[in-house]
Amino acid sequence: MEYRVGKTDFNILRLGHIEYFVQDLDRARAFYVDAIGLFETARDENHIYLRGIEDRDHHSVVLTRSPTAGIGHFSFKVASEEDLERLAHKFKGLGCPMRWLEPGEELGQGRALRVQDPLGFQVEYFAEMESVPWLLQSYHLHRHGCPTRLDHLNILIPDAQVGYEWYTRELGFYCSEYTRAAAPSDSVYGSWLFRKPTIHDIAVMTGSGPSVHHAGFSLLEPMGVIRACDALAAAGYADSIERGPARHGISNALFVYLRDPDGNRFELYTGDYLTVDREREPIAWDLDDPRRQSLWGAPPPRRWYEESMTVYTLDGQAVPKVAPTQRAIPAYVD
Amino acid sequence: MEYRVGKTDFNILRLGHIEYFVQDLDRARAFYVDAIGLFETARDENHIYLRGIEDRDHHSVVLTRSPTAGIGHFSFKVASEEDLERLAHKFKGLGCPMRWLEPGEELGQGRALRVQDPLGFQVEYFAEMESVPWLLQSYHLHRHGCPTRLDHLNILIPDAQVGYEWYTRELGFYCSEYTRAAAPSDSVYGSWLFRKPTIHDIAVMTGSGPSVHHAGFSLLEPMGVIRACDALAAAGYADSIERGPARHGISNALFVYLRDPDGNRFELYTGDYLTVDREREPIAWDLDDPRRQSLWGAPPPRRWYEESMTVYTLDGQAVPKVAPTQRAIPAYVD
Amino acid sequence: MEYRVGKTDFNILRLGHIEYFVQDLDRARAFYVDAIGLFETARDENHIYLRGIEDRDHHSVVLTRSPTAGIGHFSFKVASEEDLERLAHKFKGLGCPMRWLEPGEELGQGRALRVQDPLGFQVEYFAEMESVPWLLQSYHLHRHGCPTRLDHLNILIPDAQVGYEWYTRELGFYCSEYTRAAAPSDSVYGSWLFRKPTIHDIAVMTGSGPSVHHAGFSLLEPMGVIRACDALAAAGYADSIERGPARHGISNALFVYLRDPDGNRFELYTGDYLTVDREREPIAWDLDDPRRQSLWGAPPPRRWYEESMTVYTLDGQAVPKVAPTQRAIPAYVD
Amino acid sequence: MEYRVGKTDFNILRLGHIEYFVQDLDRARAFYVDAIGLFETARDENHIYLRGIEDRDHHSVVLTRSPTAGIGHFSFKVASEEDLERLAHKFKGLGCPMRWLEPGEELGQGRALRVQDPLGFQVEYFAEMESVPWLLQSYHLHRHGCPTRLDHLNILIPDAQVGYEWYTRELGFYCSEYTRAAAPSDSVYGSWLFRKPTIHDIAVMTGSGPSVHHAGFSLLEPMGVIRACDALAAAGYADSIERGPARHGISNALFVYLRDPDGNRFELYTGDYLTVDREREPIAWDLDDPRRQSLWGAPPPRRWYEESMTVYTLDGQAVPKVAPTQRAIPAYVD
Repeated sequence: MEYRVGKTDFNILRLGHIEYFVQDLDRARAFYVDAIGLFETARDENHIYLRGIEDRDHHSVVLTRSPTAGIGHFSFKVASEEDLERLAHKFKGLGCPMRWLEPGEELGQGRALRVQDPLGFQVEYFAEMESVPWLLQSYHLHRHGCPTRLDHLNILIPDAQVGYEWYTRELGFYCSEYTRAAAPSDSVYGSWLFRKPTIHDIAVMTGSGPSVHHAGFSLLEPMGVIRACDALAAAGYADSIERGPARHGISNALFVYLRDPDGNRFELYTGDYLTVDREREPIAWDLDDPRRQSLWGAPPPRRWYEESMTVYTLDGQAVPKVAPTQRAIPAYVD
Repeated sequence: MEYRVGKTDFNILRLGHIEYFVQDLDRARAFYVDAIGLFETARDENHIYLRGIEDRDHHSVVLTRSPTAGIGHFSFKVASEEDLERLAHKFKGLGCPMRWLEPGEELGQGRALRVQDPLGFQVEYFAEMESVPWLLQSYHLHRHGCPTRLDHLNILIPDAQVGYEWYTRELGFYCSEYTRAAAPSDSVYGSWLFRKPTIHDIAVMTGSGPSVHHAGFSLLEPMGVIRACDALAAAGYADSIERGPARHGISNALFVYLRDPDGNRFELYTGDYLTVDREREPIAWDLDDPRRQSLWGAPPPRRWYEESMTVYTLDGQAVPKVAPTQRAIPAYVD
Repeated sequence: MEYRVGKTDFNILRLGHIEYFVQDLDRARAFYVDAIGLFETARDENHIYLRGIEDRDHHSVVLTRSPTAGIGHFSFKVASEEDLERLAHKFKGLGCPMRWLEPGEELGQGRALRVQDPLGFQVEYFAEMESVPWLLQSYHLHRHGCPTRLDHLNILIPDAQVGYEWYTRELGFYCSEYTRAAAPSDSVYGSWLFRKPTIHDIAVMTGSGPSVHHAGFSLLEPMGVIRACDALAAAGYADSIERGPARHGISNALFVYLRDPDGNRFELYTGDYLTVDREREPIAWDLDDPRRQSLWGAPPPRRWYEESMTVYTLDGQAVPKVAPTQRAIPAYVD
Repeated sequence: MEYRVGKTDFNILRLGHIEYFVQDLDRARAFYVDAIGLFETARDENHIYLRGIEDRDHHSVVLTRSPTAGIGHFSFKVASEEDLERLAHKFKGLGCPMRWLEPGEELGQGRALRVQDPLGFQVEYFAEMESVPWLLQSYHLHRHGCPTRLDHLNILIPDAQVGYEWYTRELGFYCSEYTRAAAPSDSVYGSWLFRKPTIHDIAVMTGSGPSVHHAGFSLLEPMGVIRACDALAAAGYADSIERGPARHGISNALFVYLRDPDGNRFELYTGDYLTVDREREPIAWDLDDPRRQSLWGAPPPRRWYEESMTVYTLDGQAVPKVAPTQRAIPAYVD
């Protein structure tokens, strides 16, 4: 893997938020707020805006009433309004569909740029978002696993090498860890890419896509994973627990993967490390090394590889998934 | 210390419940239920009945509206109605004031015997209590430190040797650990006494009494101590935290001592061990060994030794406290 | 299920220890001591004697060099020498093979009675065992999951109803929880039986037997399960992790099942509750309720049901396993 | 407080390491390695080089044999060799004493710049350090509190406003939180300043200085604080526990302050939050708000304010401490 981070004239700070499509807002709220422990910042007829206890911005999750499950847009926060202009210039040059959102068009958010990026995802960039009360020290309100913030996104595209190059060379992302494709390919099967100095803001994996595999929420501490499972089971959501708890080799995170009542997938995640020395050589893994996905040995279920969330265009059309260009399921999966 | 457990013709199973006098039931409920995480089983005009998540009996705490703070009665559960009769016979022989409570006179409880015991405490014995839904696996309802059950009581009397002998020889309690009085005395400064096979159902300490030093509630796990402190502080009860968190040498418990809004003291407690081999030689400590009270070194504040809760007679009179007959504060306390 | 605990003229206190047959003592020691965190009390040519940090007796595990894996004997501690005599009398009356072990014949142990019990297991009863330094407060020596003590044994026999009756009616065990056999049977598929007041000293399940399914070791706290898995994986024992971590419905324990290098199975276990009110009605579960085995939903692998450890007669012969008399695998297992 | 982060032509990444002076290397090693759980990377006659489990650089602590306790130098890692040149240019312009260290002159480190900074501290800047095996996933080697990395430094100077301005305006540090001096002053009593996006790389407080109050090491998880205290106490270091465990208001960290056998102070620290949105308005606290230092209420002991570690010049002379220019002890300290 050649590792080269491109110079950019804009500064992406971090992953911002994700928009989940849900068919029933009340049902989704019962799950995300009452059973998972996210907090509702605001609600309107078609949306619920959620945040974790570490979030100081208005929201890191938008639940949008929709006829189908899936992912509307996801967003990155940039350092300034000028960064938005420079990104607009870049995407215009690439011929990507795009539009500007006026301040407040997405509740609590300043002016924002939405684009259909070259990988096929609806991505939003924003610089300003309303500050809301910080709940980190409102310990009396914390519940269950207690998600702190949206940590990362994991996306699938037919050839992850393409996405790896897009994010590193064009958008200035750094790489913390990556997985080599199965021989004889010498390309990247998956990469963990960051702007904020943790393992990742976004992971790009080879799979049927463009689609979103999951969003990952950080927890306060490892026992949060256990408490989340216990609370979900007690509240009648045992079926939501898709995989884990277990420990990833990649990222070192203690995790559990969940499905919301619409089937959307997300991860509760704790235990990664700082990547402040961002030029450090990425850690390499082999696709067929079972420790990569779980240090403790138990492989993911096949559906964990085969199912992912549909994404949508700027005008609301589902983006068809294209099959991966190479083997996308490790040999150790049944 | 001579260690001899008397034969009895009755079978005391364990500590049952404790009655705290509080001046304002709503204020006490906000504290014990909302901030501490006990659950309300029932309420009437003058009482709130509480339980922990492991309790299957109706209550382990009674909050009673009262003009003053303090401790009404505390109770032990016995194995059968016959045990109650045998205890009544014993106390009658000792000339102790006593009365029978009819089934339901204390809400949820069967017939019970209340006595003013030879040490000066109002003690209740009961065999039957209404079963209520068990919340141990209702994880979605657990909050904060999440007390599981009333674990033990700690009482003060002027000469703890007397109480040690009363509980071991007359009531059949076993001793897990004890503290020698400061030389030249060869008596017991304090003893940890049990019927259920944990460190204790009751500890008898030398101090100004008869009075109750604290009741101790078990937690699910050590992080519960941290979460309890965080939740209390966030809810505006930082002043309630009197001592700790720290680790006891005696009992090995990770603990924190708290004061309710009326000034009543209790302990959140986790980490003791089983004492199933109940004839084992008790562990001995010296009064002036600071590891006894805290393995981590920080001594208790002086008020922790000097203040304790007033107890009341069967007809509701405060029992005057008598000063201890020997030094009752360790040398390491400022 | 008819629930009747028989009167006995002996007093069994608790499960004592278990003897694992291992083919290579050094290999087994590397696993149990270095990777799991048990402590070696003593070693001779053919045995290693282990204990947990809460154990005050000489050992709770014996590793015995043997040509095959499996379980030699397991033992119960009784309150006195007289109890041994009364048990000998009982087993003699039943015509069970038995022999006396002299004090020290099993290292650190007093006189003991070994019997081939009516269920086909080699069971030992002892009253005295040498006390050894207690490591509960030797926190600087604690490692990994940090097992505290042997908590329970889980055995398989062709018809668990028989074992349930043997332990409750003949040996005075109480029942905390049980599983009904699949209809149309009205018998007990499995029962959790105790003398020390926790969920169980022994569970008796329907399966191919007589055989031992696993021994369970208690941990200090729930994070111990996570740390145990991490330490095992890091030390190269990921393959030892057979099932979990997850939460049992029965017993409420957070658990992980492991295999030692010889294939012997054991459980690390934390989070059960006290059963001091021992006459309380047992909790009933249905065989095909998936919450019974895992609150979080993931069913055990089939091998967890199909594989168990061979037991041996007093003269060292493997006891042939007999198939269960009814369905022994829940419907939810693949 | 005016908050203005200066533009710089160099890029400081993070705090690098700290050099503790100790009188006995073996005694210090027994403490830091065996009891605290740091790992030894290398040792020579006069130094031991330590790292935590998350460190990928050669060391984050240097223990240097010395006639007195105290702090030799502390260091910041910069992004490139060019940054070193630009810093050298800056310090030369300020007339600060400085010298270059050749690669390897400090073991494992590339070329480095040591300066006596305008605040009176011996500060080192380096860009390169040898990579060493990463122990984050060597869970079988983790012990006790398990420090992950050096997180921050806390220094005292007579007027913290001066240090606040130096770090923000001249070195490009951001401010996460700060404490206002007691009225009538309108200056900064203390500030928490960062380059890596956590609460701080360095805190600058008002006090007798220049001196170092403590270095802070991150832990994997909150239970690490409890395990650290338990292990220290068990290993005979209870006297090392100076303050805590408790929860800071500022930084939200669960902490404990410790003294090494030479009296040097450090903190074990867990639970802070990310500051990726680095332009966000800092959180303000009042000096006399007790929640600032401890959410749980217990104030620090007076010695925690009055004692700090002597620092040394480039040629090894102790720097005299100057009294603070304003009140430096909160009103709530006894």
